[in-house]
Amino acid sequence: MVEPVDVRPARPFGGPGPGPVPAPPADDPAGAAVLSDLVAALPADRVLTDPDTIAPYVHDEAEWADHGSPVAVVRPRSTAEVAAVVTACAAARVPVVTRGAGTGLSGGANAVDGCVVLCTERMREIVEIDPGERLAVVQPGVVNDDLRAAVAAQGLWYPPDPASAPWSTIGGNVATNAGGLCCVKYGVTRDYVLALEVVTASGEVVRLGRRTAKGVAGYDLAGLMVGSEGTLGVITEITVKLRPLRATPPRTVVGFFDTLADCGAAVAAVTARGLQPAAFELIDRHCLHAVNEWKQAGLPEDAAALLLAQTDLPEPAASAEAEAIHAEFVAAGAKDAMMSTDPVEAEALFDARRLAYPALEQRGDAVLTEDVCLPRGRLAEMLGRVEEIAARHRTLVANIAHAGDGNLHPLIIVPHGDPAAKARAQAAFDEIVIAAIDLGGTVTGEHGVGLLKRAGMRRELGPGALAMQRAIKAALDPHDILNPGKVIG
Amino acid sequence: MVEPVDVRPARPFGGPGPGPVPAPPADDPAGAAVLSDLVAALPADRVLTDPDTIAPYVHDEAEWADHGSPVAVVRPRSTAEVAAVVTACAAARVPVVTRGAGTGLSGGANAVDGCVVLCTERMREIVEIDPGERLAVVQPGVVNDDLRAAVAAQGLWYPPDPASAPWSTIGGNVATNAGGLCCVKYGVTRDYVLALEVVTASGEVVRLGRRTAKGVAGYDLAGLMVGSEGTLGVITEITVKLRPLRATPPRTVVGFFDTLADCGAAVAAVTARGLQPAAFELIDRHCLHAVNEWKQAGLPEDAAALLLAQTDLPEPAASAEAEAIHAEFVAAGAKDAMMSTDPVEAEALFDARRLAYPALEQRGDAVLTEDVCLPRGRLAEMLGRVEEIAARHRTLVANIAHAGDGNLHPLIIVPHGDPAAKARAQAAFDEIVIAAIDLGGTVTGEHGVGLLKRAGMRRELGPGALAMQRAIKAALDPHDILNPGKVIG
Repeated sequence: MVEPVDVRPARPFGGPGPGPVPAPPADDPAGAAVLSDLVAALPADRVLTDPDTIAPYVHDEAEWADHGSPVAVVRPRSTAEVAAVVTACAAARVPVVTRGAGTGLSGGANAVDGCVVLCTERMREIVEIDPGERLAVVQPGVVNDDLRAAVAAQGLWYPPDPASAPWSTIGGNVATNAGGLCCVKYGVTRDYVLALEVVTASGEVVRLGRRTAKGVAGYDLAGLMVGSEGTLGVITEITVKLRPLRATPPRTVVGFFDTLADCGAAVAAVTARGLQPAAFELIDRHCLHAVNEWKQAGLPEDAAALLLAQTDLPEPAASAEAEAIHAEFVAAGAKDAMMSTDPVEAEALFDARRLAYPALEQRGDAVLTEDVCLPRGRLAEMLGRVEEIAARHRTLVANIAHAGDGNLHPLIIVPHGDPAAKARAQAAFDEIVIAAIDLGGTVTGEHGVGLLKRAGMRRELGPGALAMQRAIKAALDPHDILNPGKVIG
Repeated sequence: MVEPVDVRPARPFGGPGPGPVPAPPADDPAGAAVLSDLVAALPADRVLTDPDTIAPYVHDEAEWADHGSPVAVVRPRSTAEVAAVVTACAAARVPVVTRGAGTGLSGGANAVDGCVVLCTERMREIVEIDPGERLAVVQPGVVNDDLRAAVAAQGLWYPPDPASAPWSTIGGNVATNAGGLCCVKYGVTRDYVLALEVVTASGEVVRLGRRTAKGVAGYDLAGLMVGSEGTLGVITEITVKLRPLRATPPRTVVGFFDTLADCGAAVAAVTARGLQPAAFELIDRHCLHAVNEWKQAGLPEDAAALLLAQTDLPEPAASAEAEAIHAEFVAAGAKDAMMSTDPVEAEALFDARRLAYPALEQRGDAVLTEDVCLPRGRLAEMLGRVEEIAARHRTLVANIAHAGDGNLHPLIIVPHGDPAAKARAQAAFDEIVIAAIDLGGTVTGEHGVGLLKRAGMRRELGPGALAMQRAIKAALDPHDILNPGKVIG
């Protein structure tokens, strides 16, 4: 069907140009004080202040999200060092912005002026893998794919698989409650966090959660930390639940559709029939074209979009489920649909899915990424709204989606250096958010609120729920030290 | 192998005798004021004050947990009525103790002096079942088994299945994060809560969570409410996630063991081999004997305990998994082990598991229920500790366990009217809690903290995590109106 493409490239994301980062302003006594404390408390190689050196640490991958200039970047190696950093910052009332690999897409890890950026990239020890209890304990800077490889060597599986898995860290995945392809059947990061070690806003080290399969001793504060984007505490150790490694390669079904509406109908029909694919993705022709351009992948470009579904049941149930998915694709109007028996070919199609975002960036344009999540039954309608919004604002919008979850990523493509196009793209972004709420969806399915979705979140939640969010933030970070201005801040 | 026993009895639990409940004291002006407000705000049949009528509402099923005397019991029929109750109580600073069916085992729903008991038993509408989105929306008073039956009629499955499912309500299940037999493979109540409508401590109605499969807009406050036992808000509507109904009856494997240590070893071996039973239970000979006495069930009593495992994979994978479980039972020293192909016979064994607790109560003794949860690999050691503690305190302790989760329910049997035996039982209860913490476990796996596990929880969590728990409670219920004195209160 198609040729395998190169995968696992060197991290291709460009992100916004950070520009020069100035030294801390001379009129920042708090910044000067905390810098002096940090240098005194930590080994010399932990604290970075050279503007060129710290430039890569001041923002994540969110297009056009503002960022400020930090006093310093610190790269601690232990929980004790993290506690020392937060204690020093709390004493001086200096903000702490925690980051992992910086692959976020909402600006959640962007520096604020005068802050200390706390980067966990050197805390990358896999502390423990326990096959009997099916759990692993890791430092926050462990890269997702590294954890997956380490536990696979012991017959175990860590399912959460964001597209950033080759680079993103487990700490960042927990801070944003990262999703991925597998979560349509196996759940998101939250579903795999058993326990956390956290440094609180006052610099105290606490343990939340448990190592046991179940537990209800007190409020679920480990769960509360998941997805809180560094605003409630700094995560210094994570205990994750594991599953047994899947025994057989999954079977793949692919369907090509002439319209996005037919795609949406196929997704709804597969769900309503009670089928449970282990991945269920949508890629539109703009994405296929970009991957072909970049990787000469030979993907077909004459359909509006393709749907990719995988089933991982034991045979012969997998074949039966694949046939049922195929039948629903055909019934929904697929122009072509087939079941793949070749794992290499199937993996090539999923690689096209994973490479869509960097492929679009390779073309030299800016890519503003949306992350709305809809009730599955409204996906077709939402895709129609996105097309209408894109046309009205004369903006190219490509679409990828975790279709089985209703999680749609419209990718808004903007040529660099065209302020009018940028303004139209921003308007389209805002209208897509409003349309998602209007259709009963959420403004962010898996990327987080960060900076880009703050207005959307306020619109979605309403005043009562927002007041509760603010009360939680004030209770756990009364001086607003931890990643101020993000999420509810 | 065994005969089917009668199931789904009229609710057999006895619970502690409540004794007479006095009218609100004449020197309780706040109580008198709130009573007058409630009578003015609600239809007449909503407010109960007659001592005999309200007696069944003042405590749950927790043996020996203290309870106080309420000003009134209210049984609202709508969210607006709940909001009116909480608003009146907040204005008068009168506590609100929310309860469902009162099947709890930790005293979490016990009245405190001068409170209003808010019972959700009349809010029992199944608002919506949506097969396309695989979700249901229910009022909190819907009984677990009623929801399961209603969604089954549409080909859907609500997995959480506490032993109290014929009587307990979804609201109570959410408030305690109830577990059950299925959660070893399918997760606990928390894993099925998508959204909640909640009345806050000030009487405001807020919506938390979402209807979509995924979402990360703000902190996970719906998740925080799950397991909070009515101390952070009153749940008035619940949106739950559903699964497709399982197609085939599960296959059952039963193993009889001469020692509890062999049982524990079998549990660890099944987990370590990567098998995933859909239920994995332990019943000891004291429980088998009580069920035989009550139901003439003909269960074998010559083993120390039996293990029951079910597999629900599609065939032939189910047969292969059943054989693998059987092999591990034999390798761990089972004196007898067999695979059942008869669903009636298998269900009879699981009914014995479900009837163990009421069967012990039928004998006329008090039953103090433990709920510790251990790392699976420490289960054998914990069972040994329980035996030693029981012998040292000359107390009969029967054991049932969700063995695959490491969730052990030692049932401490005490003749009524024997204060010395009661003191020994209380000492055994406390030592079991300490032993569980000592072995890396938690003091409560699924029953909740309520009143009985407060000291244990404090010991388990430590001062830093406790301070965070208190900060959350103070942030969301600053006047300590909601179920004061429970969990962290």
